[in-house]
Amino acid sequence: MIAEGHTRQVGILVFDEVEVLDMAGPFEVFSVASRLMLRQRPAEPPPFGVALVSADGGTVRARGGLRLTPDRSITDAPPFDIVVVPGGIVDAPERDPIVTSWVRERWTSSAVVASVCTGAFVLAAAGLLDGLKVTTHREDQAVLARRYPAVRVVGDRRWVDHGRIATSGGISAGIDLSLHLVGRFLGIGHARATAHQMEYDWRESPAG
Amino acid sequence: MIAEGHTRQVGILVFDEVEVLDMAGPFEVFSVASRLMLRQRPAEPPPFGVALVSADGGTVRARGGLRLTPDRSITDAPPFDIVVVPGGIVDAPERDPIVTSWVRERWTSSAVVASVCTGAFVLAAAGLLDGLKVTTHREDQAVLARRYPAVRVVGDRRWVDHGRIATSGGISAGIDLSLHLVGRFLGIGHARATAHQMEYDWRESPAG
Repeated sequence: MIAEGHTRQVGILVFDEVEVLDMAGPFEVFSVASRLMLRQRPAEPPPFGVALVSADGGTVRARGGLRLTPDRSITDAPPFDIVVVPGGIVDAPERDPIVTSWVRERWTSSAVVASVCTGAFVLAAAGLLDGLKVTTHREDQAVLARRYPAVRVVGDRRWVDHGRIATSGGISAGIDLSLHLVGRFLGIGHARATAHQMEYDWRESPAG
Repeated sequence: MIAEGHTRQVGILVFDEVEVLDMAGPFEVFSVASRLMLRQRPAEPPPFGVALVSADGGTVRARGGLRLTPDRSITDAPPFDIVVVPGGIVDAPERDPIVTSWVRERWTSSAVVASVCTGAFVLAAAGLLDGLKVTTHREDQAVLARRYPAVRVVGDRRWVDHGRIATSGGISAGIDLSLHLVGRFLGIGHARATAHQMEYDWRESPAG
């Protein structure tokens, strides 16, 4: 696999009380992967572009009080190849039909919708996880299984990739899943180079 | 060591082209460490508060285009117990006497000033690293040594802690150094619990 000469758009959903590293880990991985490829092939378009989107496009207050200004609202966001739904305190997005409809609609038009940590609850509420083996933060696995009985929650994987749906464990597991997705799109060698550039100990196998 | 019943203030410097994970890793570590302690001791004040500061207090555009709104400008920031200087493209803060004077001044009033990745260049420009063994991103170690000949740059450590000055390697090494600082202030057990909550494989030894 090599870069195919076009830019894949990555959209990361943010909301009040989003977990900072759930958002920032994937943001960093796709940004660094893109930057590294540009060094190697400066004449080609960057392989990834990363944008933050929120329900109304307004500034959000992440956990711990970090203030993020998204690039777009979900209603005016461009098409995305990869949609990332981070976790945090997800009660509001999980119950917001505007958000869950958007996630479901984006699933039909994206290459993959990926969750980090409790972002899996939003995907489950959107009906995208029924019948699938999925994972989430270890503290929340039992709750996810109880609330969505059609979802098969597993606790022995750092991430689970079904192709068009992927879920990861808690917080920093979003970095591992994102590196795996870089490998899917640009090859395992580029995923390894990205982890090396980030000085991150990536375990390439999802076995938890 | 146990929590002493007061809140330690952590100030993270941000600037245009700051590396996202250099900022977000420490932000997450201190926030999660604080949140976990609050669960155990809900009647006590949280052990850490985390704030972002920028030179003028205005919104900054991090690498990859992420927009962050800081809590304060450096001129109206409250006292900090811990100051974190992330890396990224640091040419501007390294050459800005307002920033380097602020870092030097804060060193006299803080328990520790810590750099992540190329944040070490800002500490070196502030004159805080002369004569010390320090580290930075492996791509930048030779440049740091050439530009600041009085600084002893080492490449075999994920972080180096001299008590009031600490430096870490590239990008995700800031997570490891921050966990180490949580251990210094709240005990190794709490640092381990924080890494566990983040589902992060923390190597407790700084040996790179």
